[in-house]
Amino acid sequence: MVRSRQPELQPKEAADPAFPENPVLVRVWRGSAVESQHRGAWVVADPSGEVIDGAGEWSRPVFVRSSVKSLQALPLIESGAAERYGFSEAEIALALSSHNAEPCHTEAVAGLLKRLGLSIADLRCGAQPPGDPGVRARLVAEGAKPTALHNNCSGKHAGFLALALHLGAPPASYLDPQSAGQLLVRDAVLSMAQLEPAELGVAVDGCSAPTFRMPLRALATAFARVANPGSLPPARRAACARMVAAVAAHPVLLAGSHDRICTAIARATNGRIFPKIGGDAVYGIGVQGLDRGLAIKIDDGSNRGLHALIVALLRRFGFATDAELSELAAWEQRSLRNWAGLEVGRTEVLA
Amino acid sequence: MVRSRQPELQPKEAADPAFPENPVLVRVWRGSAVESQHRGAWVVADPSGEVIDGAGEWSRPVFVRSSVKSLQALPLIESGAAERYGFSEAEIALALSSHNAEPCHTEAVAGLLKRLGLSIADLRCGAQPPGDPGVRARLVAEGAKPTALHNNCSGKHAGFLALALHLGAPPASYLDPQSAGQLLVRDAVLSMAQLEPAELGVAVDGCSAPTFRMPLRALATAFARVANPGSLPPARRAACARMVAAVAAHPVLLAGSHDRICTAIARATNGRIFPKIGGDAVYGIGVQGLDRGLAIKIDDGSNRGLHALIVALLRRFGFATDAELSELAAWEQRSLRNWAGLEVGRTEVLA
Repeated sequence: MVRSRQPELQPKEAADPAFPENPVLVRVWRGSAVESQHRGAWVVADPSGEVIDGAGEWSRPVFVRSSVKSLQALPLIESGAAERYGFSEAEIALALSSHNAEPCHTEAVAGLLKRLGLSIADLRCGAQPPGDPGVRARLVAEGAKPTALHNNCSGKHAGFLALALHLGAPPASYLDPQSAGQLLVRDAVLSMAQLEPAELGVAVDGCSAPTFRMPLRALATAFARVANPGSLPPARRAACARMVAAVAAHPVLLAGSHDRICTAIARATNGRIFPKIGGDAVYGIGVQGLDRGLAIKIDDGSNRGLHALIVALLRRFGFATDAELSELAAWEQRSLRNWAGLEVGRTEVLA
Repeated sequence: MVRSRQPELQPKEAADPAFPENPVLVRVWRGSAVESQHRGAWVVADPSGEVIDGAGEWSRPVFVRSSVKSLQALPLIESGAAERYGFSEAEIALALSSHNAEPCHTEAVAGLLKRLGLSIADLRCGAQPPGDPGVRARLVAEGAKPTALHNNCSGKHAGFLALALHLGAPPASYLDPQSAGQLLVRDAVLSMAQLEPAELGVAVDGCSAPTFRMPLRALATAFARVANPGSLPPARRAACARMVAAVAAHPVLLAGSHDRICTAIARATNGRIFPKIGGDAVYGIGVQGLDRGLAIKIDDGSNRGLHALIVALLRRFGFATDAELSELAAWEQRSLRNWAGLEVGRTEVLA
């Protein structure tokens, strides 16, 4: 019944592994020993693309996922679509959010779709259970199923739809990489990240939109420019300023009321720092006034290591004040407690 | 307002990192590129402690957490406590489970506590939200709070309490490492893992019980012996056989009805394979009839890499039949689909 063959020889690691030389950035201690650890890379760049500092392989490409929703929202603003369809500041914030599907998120997206003459059925992001545990539990209790409105990307998709309508493109193909709107999105990403077309990889995101792969350095550059757009052409400068102001005014719309580090950072810094998470633990941060962008990728894709590292790097480079850092202290997980409240360990950042 | 100091020099990795040389074991692809990867170690041993094969640093110690609940339950059976308090086969399975707090779990633990003349208040594991999403949602909908009964370790703690009562030790200190029951637990762990006392580290687990740190090789040895106890003294042999039979008869009690790989493996193999997960992605497997134990630790502590690796190793070593492996195929995540059902990537095991 059971095959009894000899174990094969251990295969060698392939010639081109994903992140072969990235260092350990975060250790998780239990008592007096390390239990787990997280490797990755991070890089600080200025708006010209110059690298200021970094660790690990920041020149290697990573999938930037939802971290670049601000770049993906640029054509919505620059084309005039946002103005034509009367996007409010809150709706701009939602267009670049990864939200928790709280009522403040889903009701605003539903209202926006209605104003566009569209409905949930036009969203192609797929139904996703709400990120907020309370909202998710209420949905289950009501026997209701999640819809595409609850998808954390529904605000971005409503923005994409507005762009397609404005361009006279068929809404049904708004996610097609060759559609008029997605071609503008790709151009915006390329120019903000200072990349040649051949340097930009593409795959399909969790929400079915095209997602991009670029050197981590380029992600840091793009964030430095979103938050410090002074050297950009006037229309882009205005679009960046509008997005950064929208997030500063509506930090909860960027992510959620509870347990979301993007909202916590935007709130603690009154929007001076422009943060955005992406799937599989990629992160971008733009720091207004200091001409700096920071990009992070944790190799294993888990947020546990990411959260502590973000706060440590904000401290190390003086991107956040002591008062702001103290508001973010819980994300550092310097004391890990168990279900009974006993301290069992701590998180240590090696950066 | 913002401190503008120069970045410090990048600190070197400390001299004794946790797992410096562990290889990449699992890659997660998006489209045609690797998005994330998981490093770790695994090892196959026989009941005598001989290593058959392995990858990574299997001689280094790791926290074994809940993977060794079977070892921790040995004194309950061997001392006569289980017999004295009339433990059923289902209650034995619960004593070594990490359960999802479904009614079949919590009602059985509540009944057991009542028979012991104890109550939820005697459990020191802390209140934990149920692992099962449906149970968790119902609890929220009812406005009820989770209790220690919902803690995934409540069955183990009920077993510890029975042991303390049987030994005439005060129930209130049943988690004290120097209590009569925990000293027996430590002895059982040492002898099953073939370790000297100095080789066994101790810290506090998520449920406040003492948790152990040992070479991954020793964990594989202990699992080889639980599932193949022929060479052990008669009382221990009988205790191991009783535990393995209890899990074979009640695979759902070991973990849960949905989305739990321990239950899936025990079910698919009719209990011939004895599996157990522990916190931060540590895993033990004992294979009856083949004199083999397998132990795995994923460095980053995430289960995504772990699940795919387990199935790949069961296949590689012929521990599971083709029919059994086909029942476990979903855990390999060879096709990763997004919320809209599109295939966006795949998981690749390098083992």
